[in-house]
Amino acid sequence: MPSIIVRPVDIILEKRNGAEHAPESIEAFLQGYLAGDVPDYQVAAWLMAVCWQGMSERETQALTRILTASGEALDLSELPHTVDKHSTGGVGDKATLVLAPLLAAAGATVAKMSGRALGHTGGTMDKLESIPGFRSGLTAAAFLKQAREVGVVVVGHSQELAPAEGLLYALRNATATVRSLPLIASSIMSKKLAGGASSIVLDVKVGSGAFLRTPEEARGLADLMLSIGRRAGRHMRAVLSSMAQPLGFAVGNALEVREAVACLRGEGPEDLLELCLLLAGEVLDASGLPTSQAQLRALVDGGQAMERFERWIAAQGGDVTMLDALDLAPGRDTVRAQEAGVLAEADALKIGKAAFALGAGRSRKGEAVDAGVGVVLHAKVGSGVAAGDALATLYHRDGRGLEEARSLLASALRVADEAPPAPLVLEAAPS
Amino acid sequence: MPSIIVRPVDIILEKRNGAEHAPESIEAFLQGYLAGDVPDYQVAAWLMAVCWQGMSERETQALTRILTASGEALDLSELPHTVDKHSTGGVGDKATLVLAPLLAAAGATVAKMSGRALGHTGGTMDKLESIPGFRSGLTAAAFLKQAREVGVVVVGHSQELAPAEGLLYALRNATATVRSLPLIASSIMSKKLAGGASSIVLDVKVGSGAFLRTPEEARGLADLMLSIGRRAGRHMRAVLSSMAQPLGFAVGNALEVREAVACLRGEGPEDLLELCLLLAGEVLDASGLPTSQAQLRALVDGGQAMERFERWIAAQGGDVTMLDALDLAPGRDTVRAQEAGVLAEADALKIGKAAFALGAGRSRKGEAVDAGVGVVLHAKVGSGVAAGDALATLYHRDGRGLEEARSLLASALRVADEAPPAPLVLEAAPS
Repeated sequence: MPSIIVRPVDIILEKRNGAEHAPESIEAFLQGYLAGDVPDYQVAAWLMAVCWQGMSERETQALTRILTASGEALDLSELPHTVDKHSTGGVGDKATLVLAPLLAAAGATVAKMSGRALGHTGGTMDKLESIPGFRSGLTAAAFLKQAREVGVVVVGHSQELAPAEGLLYALRNATATVRSLPLIASSIMSKKLAGGASSIVLDVKVGSGAFLRTPEEARGLADLMLSIGRRAGRHMRAVLSSMAQPLGFAVGNALEVREAVACLRGEGPEDLLELCLLLAGEVLDASGLPTSQAQLRALVDGGQAMERFERWIAAQGGDVTMLDALDLAPGRDTVRAQEAGVLAEADALKIGKAAFALGAGRSRKGEAVDAGVGVVLHAKVGSGVAAGDALATLYHRDGRGLEEARSLLASALRVADEAPPAPLVLEAAPS
Repeated sequence: MPSIIVRPVDIILEKRNGAEHAPESIEAFLQGYLAGDVPDYQVAAWLMAVCWQGMSERETQALTRILTASGEALDLSELPHTVDKHSTGGVGDKATLVLAPLLAAAGATVAKMSGRALGHTGGTMDKLESIPGFRSGLTAAAFLKQAREVGVVVVGHSQELAPAEGLLYALRNATATVRSLPLIASSIMSKKLAGGASSIVLDVKVGSGAFLRTPEEARGLADLMLSIGRRAGRHMRAVLSSMAQPLGFAVGNALEVREAVACLRGEGPEDLLELCLLLAGEVLDASGLPTSQAQLRALVDGGQAMERFERWIAAQGGDVTMLDALDLAPGRDTVRAQEAGVLAEADALKIGKAAFALGAGRSRKGEAVDAGVGVVLHAKVGSGVAAGDALATLYHRDGRGLEEARSLLASALRVADEAPPAPLVLEAAPS
């Protein structure tokens, strides 16, 4: 049994020594921080000690509880079959845009918050905002009304949900303590739990374009988040999917919206559709609406998912007549295959960095992103290519970042005699 | 070659990842901290990463340089054979009181700063201040004049020497990052280097009453400090000595002064004298005044060391007529042997805690210590004892802490059929 310690320096020392905190100790420490009694330098030292020594599942649950309880929680109890999805993030990941209306078309309610990510490309909110008129901020009443009437509503993160998570994340970001599975798990799950959905599916990405590079790490994070969610009474599922190459072909905000629309119209890309059908099947099953993959595919092919997408976008002010005329940067450039063969590698990290170089992402909070730039690939790993074939098109604004992006793509896209296997799904619905 | 990094968060990340900083990187980071541009929470996270990943000798040297250069350095260049001693601290360690006048009697100059320790018992300054009238603060001119005329002057630490060390130490103390060999080495050596002596002997303590518990750790710390000192152009020596049992018999401020005076009068205790002769021989040899152990013992037996002690104390205002009438707490209590045998253990940590319980130490900076309380042992490990023999006398003030001290002593002092070997010196003048 761990003992209960209240002096902040003793809590830090306890973690430094690799011991397990009593839940009451973590609670006293972090409540002291939130109340302004424990200074940020003590929390910073503790965070680094956590990166070093880890945290047990029980400690991680305690931390999540404290973060979740630091603010409001959405009450979605009046809505039917509330579901949510969280992706740990990757290059070209526009799954929410396809998944949310598909789930609504299947009878579930998607009333979720989504982020403006730092990094290579924007987050879901950045993508949605490339649609003219789309509003990411709604009042609580408008949010619930749209959830009830349309079945889909996606807004930016609220400062009122799990505010301590934001505070702690800012400190982690400034102290090189972001990367720690228990800190990541508690950070993600505190927001998901405050978000109020009763069923949650986690899309845990693995590969060069994800922050988790090995299936073992991804498995560990998934298990931790599943356990936290279940202990909080949520129906939880997780999928481990590949981020070795980008999801779909498009990387860049408006380009990704265009691809998501194509996908909802049944025009692929197949990997994006497959992942969305899988995630949908899992979370619908968890929420008591079991739906087969064939039934889900029929909702796409029959147009119900696309119809729900348009209602959703329109409800938040987006001009759906512009979906086929999104504003893309006028500059075009092409990266071509030097030799014939098959595409053996399409390194997601380098492709993400290429899109970033063109202006698709942000390096600081609050920075604007260029919705119209990005990269569109013309092959997936395993596709045959002829010498001179276009492997990727770059959408650039007046050549900004073009040279760097070209060079990144040249090293990201490798043509060889044969390609290694490139499975999209590494583990479906494990444990 | 490590690369040069200037963003604070990247420095933290570099250390977190176990890489070596370029000296310029540490410099930029810590100068930024001292200038107020790098916040303390970033330094706190970096300190914990250092505890985790360690620092190379080159990094430790860079850190020491920055701390040393953060303030004034004493210029002792006009004085002959300036020598200094640093002990990493232990229970009953009154060696400076004997060593400093002995060195002066041998022709060297001891012009040093000494501390008021936190912990079980006071530091050297606390011990000296149990002599009525003794002044621990002198002007720079008075300090140098006394050094020149008497050959010994010992004052409290100045805020002007290595002020960054004090700042960093306070942060380490609040963030459980005190215990780290490179941080300890740079902290100690920055003050020693700013202190200006050209020859320095380190007394690195090992055992229950020291913060280093194994000879290997002590060896590592000694080597690091030797290397830093030598690279800064100082003549360096180190001795590893035992802190399994207290040094001498007395633990407590006035009790220790009384014991040091006895030692200077040739009345022992032998372990204290032996250690002081050894440390003196090393640092005198390093400073170009080679002196044999027999010559040093003659300086004690002939009274020159005691004569120098009295001149020193008097020069700083101390009333030497009171040396045999120091104010001791009136309460007396005795811990006796339950059975006959030999003293097999006299655990220094527990004995130190007993003295602390009686009021001899301080737990917070600025707290007063009771100079008159403490513990006097009546046996060393290996001494034969009869059942009922007094093993220790407790000097207490109105019973304060007596019960706790008795209980600590009862478990600290173990009588058995035989005693393990208890060498005082583990390694003399290594490397």
